[in-house]
Amino acid sequence: MSDLSREDIEHIFQTTDRFRELGDRPIKKFPVLRGKTVINLFFENSTRTRTSFEIAGKRLSADVINISKGFSSTSKGETLLDTAKNLMAMAPDILVVRHPSSGAPLALSRILQARVINAGDGSHQHPTQALLDLLTIRDHKKKIEGLHVGIVGDIAHSRVARSNIVGLKTFGAKVTVIGPKSLMPLGVASLGVQVSYDLPSVIGDLDVIMMLRIQNERLDKTPFPSLREYSRFYGLSSQLLAKAKKDVVIMHPGPVNRGVEISPEIADGPFSLILDQVKNGVAVRTALLYLLGAEPGEKIS
Amino acid sequence: MSDLSREDIEHIFQTTDRFRELGDRPIKKFPVLRGKTVINLFFENSTRTRTSFEIAGKRLSADVINISKGFSSTSKGETLLDTAKNLMAMAPDILVVRHPSSGAPLALSRILQARVINAGDGSHQHPTQALLDLLTIRDHKKKIEGLHVGIVGDIAHSRVARSNIVGLKTFGAKVTVIGPKSLMPLGVASLGVQVSYDLPSVIGDLDVIMMLRIQNERLDKTPFPSLREYSRFYGLSSQLLAKAKKDVVIMHPGPVNRGVEISPEIADGPFSLILDQVKNGVAVRTALLYLLGAEPGEKIS
Amino acid sequence: MSDLSREDIEHIFQTTDRFRELGDRPIKKFPVLRGKTVINLFFENSTRTRTSFEIAGKRLSADVINISKGFSSTSKGETLLDTAKNLMAMAPDILVVRHPSSGAPLALSRILQARVINAGDGSHQHPTQALLDLLTIRDHKKKIEGLHVGIVGDIAHSRVARSNIVGLKTFGAKVTVIGPKSLMPLGVASLGVQVSYDLPSVIGDLDVIMMLRIQNERLDKTPFPSLREYSRFYGLSSQLLAKAKKDVVIMHPGPVNRGVEISPEIADGPFSLILDQVKNGVAVRTALLYLLGAEPGEKIS
Repeated sequence: MSDLSREDIEHIFQTTDRFRELGDRPIKKFPVLRGKTVINLFFENSTRTRTSFEIAGKRLSADVINISKGFSSTSKGETLLDTAKNLMAMAPDILVVRHPSSGAPLALSRILQARVINAGDGSHQHPTQALLDLLTIRDHKKKIEGLHVGIVGDIAHSRVARSNIVGLKTFGAKVTVIGPKSLMPLGVASLGVQVSYDLPSVIGDLDVIMMLRIQNERLDKTPFPSLREYSRFYGLSSQLLAKAKKDVVIMHPGPVNRGVEISPEIADGPFSLILDQVKNGVAVRTALLYLLGAEPGEKIS
Repeated sequence: MSDLSREDIEHIFQTTDRFRELGDRPIKKFPVLRGKTVINLFFENSTRTRTSFEIAGKRLSADVINISKGFSSTSKGETLLDTAKNLMAMAPDILVVRHPSSGAPLALSRILQARVINAGDGSHQHPTQALLDLLTIRDHKKKIEGLHVGIVGDIAHSRVARSNIVGLKTFGAKVTVIGPKSLMPLGVASLGVQVSYDLPSVIGDLDVIMMLRIQNERLDKTPFPSLREYSRFYGLSSQLLAKAKKDVVIMHPGPVNRGVEISPEIADGPFSLILDQVKNGVAVRTALLYLLGAEPGEKIS
Repeated sequence: MSDLSREDIEHIFQTTDRFRELGDRPIKKFPVLRGKTVINLFFENSTRTRTSFEIAGKRLSADVINISKGFSSTSKGETLLDTAKNLMAMAPDILVVRHPSSGAPLALSRILQARVINAGDGSHQHPTQALLDLLTIRDHKKKIEGLHVGIVGDIAHSRVARSNIVGLKTFGAKVTVIGPKSLMPLGVASLGVQVSYDLPSVIGDLDVIMMLRIQNERLDKTPFPSLREYSRFYGLSSQLLAKAKKDVVIMHPGPVNRGVEISPEIADGPFSLILDQVKNGVAVRTALLYLLGAEPGEKIS
């Protein structure tokens, strides 16, 4: 996200505006990427993100190829770079890469003659998630600048948090990260955000509450006592939400652990933007594929 | 199947007639679902059914997205409903759902703004299988009404049996279910069928013999002694088939356990309609996708 | 490979020439297989080969269906033949088959009314690999006849070796197979090649060095002491390469075990044709799909 200026992001959003109603059309198809090859190279499973990119690519008429963890030659001991070089020899136009190692997509983009989209790398960045989150906030608040956004949960391991912090600050929002000390990154202050360990005491000041997904597999390895304990202090309940601003909006990158980080009635309630996020995700990714893959002069009609 | 009247089914079959020779054409492609998105959401593996829907969708020019068990976010603890709502936010036109829980597709169809096709749910229903079976019977017998159809095997756990019983009765066929007591459902009489525990004594009266697949994983949990035992009493051998009518036809939903529920020479023999079933499966599913997904006035040419 | 005459292969290469720059075009799409269905039936995982065929099929506008090991009904006990017959009932035009059993694709091609491409069967044959290897050699050496080609590694279990030996001899090349005795097939002399157990002593005479992939899972079962031992005697290092001809070329079918059969600086060095092989793989497979699937008179434009 730090590579993108505010102007870059505005340009992406303007392009997104031209695609966002594509899903509501009877014929959801643009020929702008016809004859282009998009490879979804996913070393971690993700229904949501992979499907979002796959739908985006197909609606732009690209040939979309999915390669998933288990099927990749890396399971035969091949290095990521060899896998990627081999795929490049097949002349794809865009490589969408999700990888458990931070920095993997960047490394590929430096070496390959290809357009690489980072679809989430380790606990580093998830820029398309941040873009869709920023867009969703602006859709509902009509601005981002000056808003106070709270990001709640496992800040230490969250690429969603990291990308959103950068993006929100680019647009001049105030960000508070909230969570237990054990799930805060070392040197959290250097991220340029406020830090709180107490959700109830700050919730009343927030315009946007961004709940992060608790990853059970990680909790096992942290000093945090239990899911129940976590939920009690950092889960979003109706009781807690009553202390929030009347026009607060609630976001979650999904998949949601209902009853852990967010209670079902809030996930499905009037303040929740969760499904708007998903919808905007397809639109933003469609715009990115278009911007990276379309021939100059190719028009959206 | 109980939602479909005889008129509904006749309408589906008339539409199927317009697609059934599609597979024999040099160019197997209709543009009627161009710009439509079909998601195959399969929580159980099934080469046959998934491939059948995928081919049907692609030949109608739809964008087809496959989501399989292992790749779904439900493996991360997300509920089926959340998975489905998230997919809906990506604006698919049709959701084809296979799920191990009875009622899952119905539940989704009630909540989502989407056209949902049940591609098999638990031991409840498998309506597209029943439709292709009915069509296959009518192709070869020129009628369904008045025929005597025997369904042989694990009636208790078979969604194929359940859907076919409803469909066959809608068309006025007589149905006898045949199998060991341990594999008969409680209250089998309430299904409006005759019950037999002795295949040899009824085979001579049957016009159609529909063999069900024995699922080994289930046999382990039943009081049934062994596959060998099962095969001896309820498997279809040449010796037993000699007692059948001269114009009997044999069906099986596949995949076949050769030598267990049916002997190889019968599976491949002149009475077997197994491959006709598969062929009709693509045609019926093509018709269903067309009926549910095409814009009004979109013609098949 | 033994089914293909030199004229057949020349014809394939001439067709390939018309497709090989397809990957460099802005619009990588030909409508020649529009309305055709290609099924990739892979009973062994292979990113490279499956992706290569998938990209080839999609760029020719075919509907491409992937079926992978875990998803196939053979995991439910169905025979390969039943799986294939069922797929045939869905009227695909071309079946691309990879299977761990030698002879499986041939058996299918004899029984099915279908065009079957062998994408690798057991330790028997991998003809499309041999075709792309021959083409890559000719691209760089301007001829194949009279060249001395060394194939190094696990000759006994390598379908790549077997197919290349046949193809190279068809074109009049001299072939030496090089490896430890424990990895030589019984009756290796009957293959019509020279045999060496000592790479350093023959390397100076070779025009082409074709390194085979060492499959760790197999080494466990052979009398060969260790990877380190193997690498020391049969791995290609810079030191060893210094003894080779100045215009030698190095090939490897991938995925590469860097540091085992080939050192990283050689894999990425100026003599390596590894990525050319991959690129030619897509082109050759595009040509084969076109030759097998296009309607007579369908032109490439």
